[in-house]
Amino acid sequence: MQTLNTYKPKNINTHLIEIQDYFKIAISVDCVIFGFDENELKVLLIKSDLDQYKSKWSLLGDIVHTDENLEDAAYRVLLNRTGLQDVYLEQVHTFGKVCRHPAGRVVTIAYYSLINIQHSTIRNMDNELHWHPVKKVKQMAFDHREILDACYQRLQEKLKEHPVGFNLLPKKFSLRELQNLYEAILDVKLDRRNFRKKIMSMGLLIDLNEMEDDVPHRPAKLYKFDAEAFEKKEKNLLGLES
Amino acid sequence: MQTLNTYKPKNINTHLIEIQDYFKIAISVDCVIFGFDENELKVLLIKSDLDQYKSKWSLLGDIVHTDENLEDAAYRVLLNRTGLQDVYLEQVHTFGKVCRHPAGRVVTIAYYSLINIQHSTIRNMDNELHWHPVKKVKQMAFDHREILDACYQRLQEKLKEHPVGFNLLPKKFSLRELQNLYEAILDVKLDRRNFRKKIMSMGLLIDLNEMEDDVPHRPAKLYKFDAEAFEKKEKNLLGLES
Repeated sequence: MQTLNTYKPKNINTHLIEIQDYFKIAISVDCVIFGFDENELKVLLIKSDLDQYKSKWSLLGDIVHTDENLEDAAYRVLLNRTGLQDVYLEQVHTFGKVCRHPAGRVVTIAYYSLINIQHSTIRNMDNELHWHPVKKVKQMAFDHREILDACYQRLQEKLKEHPVGFNLLPKKFSLRELQNLYEAILDVKLDRRNFRKKIMSMGLLIDLNEMEDDVPHRPAKLYKFDAEAFEKKEKNLLGLES
Repeated sequence: MQTLNTYKPKNINTHLIEIQDYFKIAISVDCVIFGFDENELKVLLIKSDLDQYKSKWSLLGDIVHTDENLEDAAYRVLLNRTGLQDVYLEQVHTFGKVCRHPAGRVVTIAYYSLINIQHSTIRNMDNELHWHPVKKVKQMAFDHREILDACYQRLQEKLKEHPVGFNLLPKKFSLRELQNLYEAILDVKLDRRNFRKKIMSMGLLIDLNEMEDDVPHRPAKLYKFDAEAFEKKEKNLLGLES
């Protein structure tokens, strides 16, 4: 970063004085927390606590502390709200329209994360906190609808090239569940045989030699995600191994 | 955005008081300005004006004014530095490590843009401003090397799926120039025949029925980018036309 109208080298002090007027913007993080449940992609939303957005739903977020890294703020929100650590988190876009927040100039950095709903302990500390099917979300508080749309689109693009969907499933899953997840996120119908062929050819599934139980249909085989094989594959992509 | 430890609905005033302490972070934009010249992908850099980064190169950027939208700030930097408007601009990532800027907490939003070097009038208002081959850039001021790498990677991904490269070329260009551009950005050698077949099948080139002149090799046919056909194609992708 360089200021524009400067004609000689500056030291830190002159630079500080020059820019102190600009330290008037707040930074927040907003987390689009996706989960997968009942064959639907869901997002965790909270009722807005601002009068003017009364009864509107909003994303989970918070102001970034001045001594806190951006990702740390996002992880803090996730831990506080879902009880989960080490979840998949990806920065998507920063939203900063001048009038986007009624309290002043607040620039927000949008993240999405993928969590396993079964593992989370949703913490409802103040307002109503609920999972909403993404497809059924309507108006939201602030510019949160735009943020949700951007994150959902990024998730769709990501899923086409990277096996991020496993983060949304229980540890053991059937190929049917996996296909349901792809269909729900991409909003398409996939051919069962082609899907299975493609997924198996990725070499990222471990056959657990177990069957589903307690299901209303014919029990299917159970698999788990092969994190080790995936890590190896990623390394190869980066050219780190021969 | 919601603060965490609140137990009843708030109005704007209480919310304002609560968060005013947080308005202590400055926001900047940093622009990775790419150009294409002498068969090389280049980036526009300026000598840092901070003592501690003396003789190090940095990206072009500036503080975002409190009443300015983020993109407007990036366009302002571009106009000031290159004399160009209406250039290709894309937000890539926001960098905000606590100690990334010696003057205080400055969170920076990274954009990359693609410009035609021949059309720009580089304005050297204060420090040395130069085009550098991306491959030869070494250490940079601040975390600007990390920002450059992220933007270059995004450009590579983008180029594989979208015809953004035309923004870097003169209005009229040969297929050889176009291939040189793809090879330079993707850092690969491409088969001449396959490349031409693929490019022509995109249907985005207009044959100008003109030949290069004043070249040291056999003159090649000249083409221009068919912006109209591209727009139509994009619309179809969005499902706006049948």
